[in-house]
Amino acid sequence: VGVLGSGDFARSLAIRLVCSGFKVVVGSRNPKRKAGLFPSAAEVTFQAEAVKKTDVIFVAVFREHYSTLCDLADVLVGKILVDVSNNTEINHHKESNAEYLASLFPACAVVKGFNVVSAWTLQSGARDGNKQVPICSNNQEAKRTVAEITQVMGFTPVDMGCMSSACEIENIPLRLLPAWKIPIFLALGLFLCFFTYNVIRQVIHPYIREQKNKLYKIPIEVVNTTLPCVAYVMLSLVYLPGVLAACSQLYYGTKYRRFPDWLDQWLQHRKQIGLLSFFCAALHAVYSLCLPMRRSHRYQLIETAVKQAVEKKMNIWVEEEVWRMEIYISVGIIALGLLSLLAITSLPSIANSLNWREFSFIQVKLTFV
Amino acid sequence: VGVLGSGDFARSLAIRLVCSGFKVVVGSRNPKRKAGLFPSAAEVTFQAEAVKKTDVIFVAVFREHYSTLCDLADVLVGKILVDVSNNTEINHHKESNAEYLASLFPACAVVKGFNVVSAWTLQSGARDGNKQVPICSNNQEAKRTVAEITQVMGFTPVDMGCMSSACEIENIPLRLLPAWKIPIFLALGLFLCFFTYNVIRQVIHPYIREQKNKLYKIPIEVVNTTLPCVAYVMLSLVYLPGVLAACSQLYYGTKYRRFPDWLDQWLQHRKQIGLLSFFCAALHAVYSLCLPMRRSHRYQLIETAVKQAVEKKMNIWVEEEVWRMEIYISVGIIALGLLSLLAITSLPSIANSLNWREFSFIQVKLTFV
Amino acid sequence: VGVLGSGDFARSLAIRLVCSGFKVVVGSRNPKRKAGLFPSAAEVTFQAEAVKKTDVIFVAVFREHYSTLCDLADVLVGKILVDVSNNTEINHHKESNAEYLASLFPACAVVKGFNVVSAWTLQSGARDGNKQVPICSNNQEAKRTVAEITQVMGFTPVDMGCMSSACEIENIPLRLLPAWKIPIFLALGLFLCFFTYNVIRQVIHPYIREQKNKLYKIPIEVVNTTLPCVAYVMLSLVYLPGVLAACSQLYYGTKYRRFPDWLDQWLQHRKQIGLLSFFCAALHAVYSLCLPMRRSHRYQLIETAVKQAVEKKMNIWVEEEVWRMEIYISVGIIALGLLSLLAITSLPSIANSLNWREFSFIQVKLTFV
Repeated sequence: VGVLGSGDFARSLAIRLVCSGFKVVVGSRNPKRKAGLFPSAAEVTFQAEAVKKTDVIFVAVFREHYSTLCDLADVLVGKILVDVSNNTEINHHKESNAEYLASLFPACAVVKGFNVVSAWTLQSGARDGNKQVPICSNNQEAKRTVAEITQVMGFTPVDMGCMSSACEIENIPLRLLPAWKIPIFLALGLFLCFFTYNVIRQVIHPYIREQKNKLYKIPIEVVNTTLPCVAYVMLSLVYLPGVLAACSQLYYGTKYRRFPDWLDQWLQHRKQIGLLSFFCAALHAVYSLCLPMRRSHRYQLIETAVKQAVEKKMNIWVEEEVWRMEIYISVGIIALGLLSLLAITSLPSIANSLNWREFSFIQVKLTFV
Repeated sequence: VGVLGSGDFARSLAIRLVCSGFKVVVGSRNPKRKAGLFPSAAEVTFQAEAVKKTDVIFVAVFREHYSTLCDLADVLVGKILVDVSNNTEINHHKESNAEYLASLFPACAVVKGFNVVSAWTLQSGARDGNKQVPICSNNQEAKRTVAEITQVMGFTPVDMGCMSSACEIENIPLRLLPAWKIPIFLALGLFLCFFTYNVIRQVIHPYIREQKNKLYKIPIEVVNTTLPCVAYVMLSLVYLPGVLAACSQLYYGTKYRRFPDWLDQWLQHRKQIGLLSFFCAALHAVYSLCLPMRRSHRYQLIETAVKQAVEKKMNIWVEEEVWRMEIYISVGIIALGLLSLLAITSLPSIANSLNWREFSFIQVKLTFV
Repeated sequence: VGVLGSGDFARSLAIRLVCSGFKVVVGSRNPKRKAGLFPSAAEVTFQAEAVKKTDVIFVAVFREHYSTLCDLADVLVGKILVDVSNNTEINHHKESNAEYLASLFPACAVVKGFNVVSAWTLQSGARDGNKQVPICSNNQEAKRTVAEITQVMGFTPVDMGCMSSACEIENIPLRLLPAWKIPIFLALGLFLCFFTYNVIRQVIHPYIREQKNKLYKIPIEVVNTTLPCVAYVMLSLVYLPGVLAACSQLYYGTKYRRFPDWLDQWLQHRKQIGLLSFFCAALHAVYSLCLPMRRSHRYQLIETAVKQAVEKKMNIWVEEEVWRMEIYISVGIIALGLLSLLAITSLPSIANSLNWREFSFIQVKLTFV
């Protein structure tokens, strides 16, 4: 196996290939100076020589320097080139790096792959996190060869079809949870609004009216009244776009008209909004369960008991209050149980084992309850 | 790519194919009337013409109308036909739709696929839920071509082998959690029995004997005493069939005799029964944790305190009661911890990363504790 | 399909193959005596005859007896041999069983597979747990044929590349959670240390000093103070090796030097240590939530109330204690929320859907908070 380039990634690639039992030939423009950087089992030589000796060549060179490889065009004929490059921005260039490389060397079989793997992962082996390496190529035979090399290196090759997927593959490492950004800001915004309202209502208002210091309520009680409000609004935001979409279909009288962009975006973020709603509901449950653990709860209880004992009042049972609390709690538990079912079926491995009918049965009908 | 048919599914398929960058030719018996229904980028023409212009043809026609395609037999020679049809009942016909289509057109390469995808998913793109599209065919080359089209359309093709799997694939969308039906009815039945018993014992009996109104106990306390009973019985039902199977093997003196049908069914539902048992145990834990939050708990506490204060009784510590409660709670927590380990290893993605020895170690030995 | 051998595995294999609709020919050295053991649909005959009649042959014979098959070398030419054997120890022999078989019959296409499946799973069908059957071979065509047979038998074939993976495949069934051993012993050791210290401090010390019997604290309160200590130490052990590795890189001035073995081992166990830390933290949360449910808590509360009422002391509010508890609890909930995020992203199916940047963002940055 050949490696062109002497950067950080080329070095890590060479180390990993040597460790996996391949015979590695590194091609460099200055082999003498760079030889010390590579493991001693790898042969470091001039680029043309490295290409001649090998069939599969990893091109660990920046896109900007692809044109410098044009001198090697003759020796590269019929070889398999693996493009491992990454971009710094999403959709930076008009065509993907791999397609650009393929256009420069039409006589080679270009395979895109390994760009999702970091230099660190290559050196240390795929330990945890994602071991999948998406690869794509227009040449079936070349793709299969590279897939087998990937396997031997300890990664799981994922066939992404033909070269047109290269652009998508190159965008993978640049994503940072894109689908989560809007829902998280939404949740934070809602939290802030409700939190301010509750602080005014539960802390500032009693202070102004009755000069009572209720500041101790902020960390738990106020947060605990804020969370279910956020959870409720988020949950309604999950079901609202579906209703809007149905209305828009009824209004235009056709199912085949595209929704406006904002509605489309909203429909796509439903899963994330739903999971954040579940997260808020679960936190609310934990906060509520912690209420009787607090010192303040204990003190209030003892104070009431002492007051009643001094006044010799024996019966303080209020039937209505008892019932209200019992019903609150039991409805809350059932709602949380249903929401957790919804969250579990959102796990990719569970969702993959359900068919469409089962998935929509659980996600729509059950949670409408 | 060609599409035969002009129903809802054919239209959604055409939209998706156009969006994915394919050149789509739709074949209809009445192209003029139907042209308005398809996206303008798709060409709508007569069936024979559409077939001539394309290599891969999606047959979006009901099984009942397959025979009407026989006129096209000559132009279809050597083409790839994709059968996307669904049945309305499980195992409705003796042979699968795809096999029937293949028998009508022996000169075509028939591929089964896309039947698990709904028209709605096709239009909106595979957003969440299951993106897997199982495909099968006797023709390797045709299967690979269709798999690549699937990939480009944004779905994940899953190779299900040769045509004999078609029947299985056609049954997938008709399932509605078949393995869960019996266990859920079992759990509901058990719950009802124990709930009635507990209502009689905790609410009706004290009312008749002492005229005390304990109705407030129904939503939480009675449910909370019912849930662990259901969980226990269900858990024992998980281990019982294994014992019965071993007994039957000992009795007949051979491992190679098939178990009776009811035992076989029972053995197959163990996982679902176990998960429902875990669900009941988890609900019981949440209900128990909510007990001290209730108004009634607070009132009873204050009442006792007032009574003790008035009677000037200072020492109410009962060592035995204290110990009993401490032991109940700690055993309960440990049991719940072990059960949740069992539930986590039942997640498909975790179960797939365990070998058989590890799986049975956790599922059998650990939970026998 | 042929099966050589008449042991337990051979029999189960024959049953499964017959059930999956294959025509099975069993080759035995003593067909008359063994015929009764196999299902009646399978033909039992002499080895040479069985081989002649079939193309794909499962070799269900121990490695020690491979040499006895050498008489069949002539009839075996061009056939596909499936090696299903297992070892009793990890890396028992220098070369894997499959490679040994391939060296004995160079004219056959040897495929390794099915060794991860137990005889019991074969008979009863792959119900739950792992349905994946890793297969590998140097012959692409043979591998594809066996993969299709695997599919029809109800298992999911996983392509592990060429024959050099055979050794790895043979080691799979011998593993018993190897990565968990050290972390679990570490957690148990830490638990014992902290538990002893806390028993001395909370139970023995007050007994010696004030003759108070606090034994009832052992099952819940002492365990509850021990768990967060274990969780904290384990969590710091997750981040420590990363710091040590960075220091070692700075000290040697290079990223390309291998870490010492103990550090490497430690880096590899970080995920397991982190999950155990989360498990301890979650248990601590449940124990803490159970505290107000206990009888002892109730008795202490009533006792204090009675004491206060008798002494007519109305105000027992301690602002500092109230604040301390509120802050403890809210920080604890937030920490648990972050840790559970970390645990969820460790699930294989979620980790596979994240790219490297997202994974390290959640695992490193978020949990450093």
